[in-house]
Amino acid sequence: LHDGNIEDLNAKSNDRKLLYEEWASYSVFYKYQPIGLIRKYFGEKVGLYFAWLGVYTQMLIPAAIVGVIVFLYGCATVDDNIPSMEICDARNNITMCPLCDRACSYWKLVTACGTARASHLFDNPATVLFAIFMALWAVLFMEHWKRRQMRLNYIWDLTGFGEEEEDHNRAEYEFRVMQKTMRKEYSTPKITVTFAIVFGVILYRISIKAALHMSSNPTLANNTRATVKTTAAIINLIIIIILDEIYAAIARWLTTLEVPKTDKSFEERLIFKTFILKFVNAFTPIVYLAFFRGRLVGRPGKYLYVVRPHRMEECAHAGCLMELCIQLCITMLGKQLIQNNLFEIGIPKLKKLLRRRKSDLDSKREEELNKNLQCHEKDHFLGPFVGLSPEYMEMIIQFGMVTLFVASFPLAPLFALLNNIIEIRLDAKKFVMEMRRPIAAKAKDIGIWYNLLRGLSKVAVIVNAFVIAFTSDFIPRLVYQYMYSPDGTMHGFVNHALSYFNVSDFEQDTDPLQPMQLGYKVEVCRYKDYREPPWSGTPYELSKEFWVILAARLTFVIVFQNIVMLMSDFMDWLIPDIPKDISLQMHKEKILMVELFMKEEQGKRLGALDNHNQDTCNTPTSANQCPPQPRSRPVSHAGSRKPST
Amino acid sequence: LHDGNIEDLNAKSNDRKLLYEEWASYSVFYKYQPIGLIRKYFGEKVGLYFAWLGVYTQMLIPAAIVGVIVFLYGCATVDDNIPSMEICDARNNITMCPLCDRACSYWKLVTACGTARASHLFDNPATVLFAIFMALWAVLFMEHWKRRQMRLNYIWDLTGFGEEEEDHNRAEYEFRVMQKTMRKEYSTPKITVTFAIVFGVILYRISIKAALHMSSNPTLANNTRATVKTTAAIINLIIIIILDEIYAAIARWLTTLEVPKTDKSFEERLIFKTFILKFVNAFTPIVYLAFFRGRLVGRPGKYLYVVRPHRMEECAHAGCLMELCIQLCITMLGKQLIQNNLFEIGIPKLKKLLRRRKSDLDSKREEELNKNLQCHEKDHFLGPFVGLSPEYMEMIIQFGMVTLFVASFPLAPLFALLNNIIEIRLDAKKFVMEMRRPIAAKAKDIGIWYNLLRGLSKVAVIVNAFVIAFTSDFIPRLVYQYMYSPDGTMHGFVNHALSYFNVSDFEQDTDPLQPMQLGYKVEVCRYKDYREPPWSGTPYELSKEFWVILAARLTFVIVFQNIVMLMSDFMDWLIPDIPKDISLQMHKEKILMVELFMKEEQGKRLGALDNHNQDTCNTPTSANQCPPQPRSRPVSHAGSRKPST
Repeated sequence: LHDGNIEDLNAKSNDRKLLYEEWASYSVFYKYQPIGLIRKYFGEKVGLYFAWLGVYTQMLIPAAIVGVIVFLYGCATVDDNIPSMEICDARNNITMCPLCDRACSYWKLVTACGTARASHLFDNPATVLFAIFMALWAVLFMEHWKRRQMRLNYIWDLTGFGEEEEDHNRAEYEFRVMQKTMRKEYSTPKITVTFAIVFGVILYRISIKAALHMSSNPTLANNTRATVKTTAAIINLIIIIILDEIYAAIARWLTTLEVPKTDKSFEERLIFKTFILKFVNAFTPIVYLAFFRGRLVGRPGKYLYVVRPHRMEECAHAGCLMELCIQLCITMLGKQLIQNNLFEIGIPKLKKLLRRRKSDLDSKREEELNKNLQCHEKDHFLGPFVGLSPEYMEMIIQFGMVTLFVASFPLAPLFALLNNIIEIRLDAKKFVMEMRRPIAAKAKDIGIWYNLLRGLSKVAVIVNAFVIAFTSDFIPRLVYQYMYSPDGTMHGFVNHALSYFNVSDFEQDTDPLQPMQLGYKVEVCRYKDYREPPWSGTPYELSKEFWVILAARLTFVIVFQNIVMLMSDFMDWLIPDIPKDISLQMHKEKILMVELFMKEEQGKRLGALDNHNQDTCNTPTSANQCPPQPRSRPVSHAGSRKPST
Repeated sequence: LHDGNIEDLNAKSNDRKLLYEEWASYSVFYKYQPIGLIRKYFGEKVGLYFAWLGVYTQMLIPAAIVGVIVFLYGCATVDDNIPSMEICDARNNITMCPLCDRACSYWKLVTACGTARASHLFDNPATVLFAIFMALWAVLFMEHWKRRQMRLNYIWDLTGFGEEEEDHNRAEYEFRVMQKTMRKEYSTPKITVTFAIVFGVILYRISIKAALHMSSNPTLANNTRATVKTTAAIINLIIIIILDEIYAAIARWLTTLEVPKTDKSFEERLIFKTFILKFVNAFTPIVYLAFFRGRLVGRPGKYLYVVRPHRMEECAHAGCLMELCIQLCITMLGKQLIQNNLFEIGIPKLKKLLRRRKSDLDSKREEELNKNLQCHEKDHFLGPFVGLSPEYMEMIIQFGMVTLFVASFPLAPLFALLNNIIEIRLDAKKFVMEMRRPIAAKAKDIGIWYNLLRGLSKVAVIVNAFVIAFTSDFIPRLVYQYMYSPDGTMHGFVNHALSYFNVSDFEQDTDPLQPMQLGYKVEVCRYKDYREPPWSGTPYELSKEFWVILAARLTFVIVFQNIVMLMSDFMDWLIPDIPKDISLQMHKEKILMVELFMKEEQGKRLGALDNHNQDTCNTPTSANQCPPQPRSRPVSHAGSRKPST
């Protein structure tokens, strides 16, 4: 990568200096980006990235505001929330079944009061509306970007530019094609390998989870769970970040195995694979928390076990939503903090330093030399431009966090917004100062990234539907209120959602070691599930309520998904892809061009007529009727008369 | 509408004659249509219609074949079907509750044997696969058409043709705009009116249904039900056809109320409205049969009533699927037969005749004159061209029948195929012989029809999911086999699906007048529902099985919808919109054009150089180095030398 006309930043004003002042600085965070200048300096591809990032960040503002409102609504209504009030009411003397075998004892529901109140912040009816809002927001964002892209295409005069014109075959492909004729079995396991790796990732993550869980679970006391959970989430995060780097390498290796035909196809395949791997990596723990944790725990007296003494993980009383929130919060904040600050700032700086060291035989002499160094020589110490993929990837994963699990964490857009405001300037600094100037590349659109975004916003609808229906307590509450509640209020919901367990039905060696910890003999304890009581004909079987609520949950998923899809399609159809003024202007230009073309044609015809006239002028009789001749004619006469004389 | 170069069909060969022979004849039904010739003679718009119809008909062939296979599978397995075997087994002495109040008595389940066996033809596991197949078929059809359209666009040289160029304001719009400034409230109720009408249609249809039902139900005996149902379906059909004409008028009136800006927008709005109204009209009875009939009947002892003595309609024992089949069959066959033969052939012929009569003062003299009549005068007796909308509309409604309820009637594609083979030639005849020649109109695509088709194929996925889950017995059977069956087979399903009713619990004056009709005293009768038996703690309440099955049904809907949508999207993404050869050719042409342009530019530059050379030639020293002059030059010299001499 060679450097262009980059001069010292402290020297006279130039594009780079202008960019540095007007763009790559935190102090201008509130300003629009100088996209035109960026494009001029770095080329269309980089320009489009920053334009996209700008649109995304801009669109995050309303989402963040609504998210904060939803959160504040949760805060404001936490004291009016009947279920958490009932949990916190010490008069409801509910004895719960132990949370682990042997070591744990019975506990009072009132101790879960804090978690229940906190859960309400993220699990209230406003979240449902917010999930719908965010699904539509995603569509609106895609539409808005399409229009912005169209406008940029028009302004940058790319409307006629065809992508495929730059599509050259890769040298490696030409080489491999020759090889391929010899060993044909090379290309068949392509896709198989990719899928195998993806499944491998999932299995690997689950086993890590299990290992982590096994080592920590039996020793901890009940009230230290939250802290352990938080540290577990942090460990998780670190693993994610480390694995991310490994997966990027794997994706690259896999794609070279595939030997795609062109550079563009190579890039797209690489991106797609990296995306799948990174996505699985980033979202496995979240999906596990949202949909699997606490589902397969069995029931008292018949727990399911990972390995004999270790039960499947249960959620806290108020559902797994709270833990999901913590996980999302830590992933988003932590990833952004660590990856942005450490990787994006630290590593390039470190590399720059190292590279400087390497060529630094005598540090003192070097320093002296450094001052006299030409700017383009200085640029050599800057990191090479590695493409926009990592930048896009990071943003797409963030977009996934913002849209996919927004029902469980309404503050996600706010976090994303704050991150992006920094991210834009950070990337800007990196591009202007830390990296060599990339070769300007033309691009009409953001390519495969658009498809990935679109795919994500489609998946988001169904994921949010499932989060609301299955992870939150929204549906059970609704069903209770309208089907079971004696007075049509939420009073009694907590009691209704707890099943009874007769302590004499514990399996051997699973009953608590200290059954009298609460100070009285427990005969029946409660657990969160919808099962028949021990005195029914079919004790501990899933009760009718369970199936009623399941049907309600599923109905909600169907209704939510279809309504949101319908609204999205309607919005997609309502908003034209090309802004009105641009389409008008394009139309005008087309007409102008047609007119110009017509005029030229006419001009040619007239010219032919002219010639014809001159032909007739050859005859002496018509000589005086000849029209006045065009300007260039006398010159040629003058020139041609000479040889004839 | 004026006629073009139409000559007598018996005269010398011309385009019309060629079309008549090669296209508008049933004897060439197996041949591809001469689309190029059609386009040449009728213009692009008509050409596209017939090309579309051709693609649709062609695509129906595999669908029809698979449909027939599914039907044959049903026929082949009808004797192995355990539920219908159990129903037909006289040893299972099951006494059913009466089907109507007072007049009906108890009946033996074995009498439903025929219906049960017939139901299996349309309600077997293969239908599920067929529904998935048809959803993908719809996507494939859309993709195939997109590619065909692209190819036609390329061949017909329309790739550069912009739709909006032909978009002129309607005269009426200009007129109305002036008026509008005076009364502005005119435009607000637009959409409101449309929606009101749609709901009106639904209500009207339901009330007609209720009226029909009330007048016929109480008098009929149990075994005449099928015939009455068939006649009801025929009456329904006639009402549909009559209403269709009325709705078309309403739609036109509504659209004129809206005062759209351009002709194109007028047409699109009109089509959209007509479509909605016709669609609601055609599908209300089918949707009613599929999803509402038999759902809201209540239970013995607590039936729901339309008006007191008239219960809500029940379905036959094997579910409403059979009746849905009959309805679909009659609608498709009948609509095609009546509308095609009567309306499309009969009415134009009749009109032609009438028009001839009108201008026929003296029939004998006329006849004499007729022989000497010029062909273009003869054409005057032909009907005017009324646009392609009715043709498209008919096909779209048919497409709806084929895709929306294909799960309940696998023969629909076959019926549609047979109809379309006739339809193509019929329309061809109509265009060539019965109508005046339309003004050739340019069109790049089939416009709003494509969007309607796309919308339909999206709706089809969810409708089919619901038909399989709720109308057919597929899910209850599956749940029985895997959750309740003692031996993992279907044995005992019929008994499991019937609830018990104690005849002493009948409401007053609803118990049968002849309780001893079967020859013994009935104490407990059975009815098809999942409710608690009279001896349970909560008699006649919905049982746990009901909720389990409901949850299973809903799960099926979610899984089916999302899998099919995923597969559709994947297929959409897999198949490029532009055929490879066309895109290659277009690319080549583009390069060629760029080269040509470059050459011309170069030519100009050379020319300029030439001129420059000639300028230098003016100086006497360089005179001998002048290049040989272009061909046209000597002429102008010859002409211009004269005046100078």
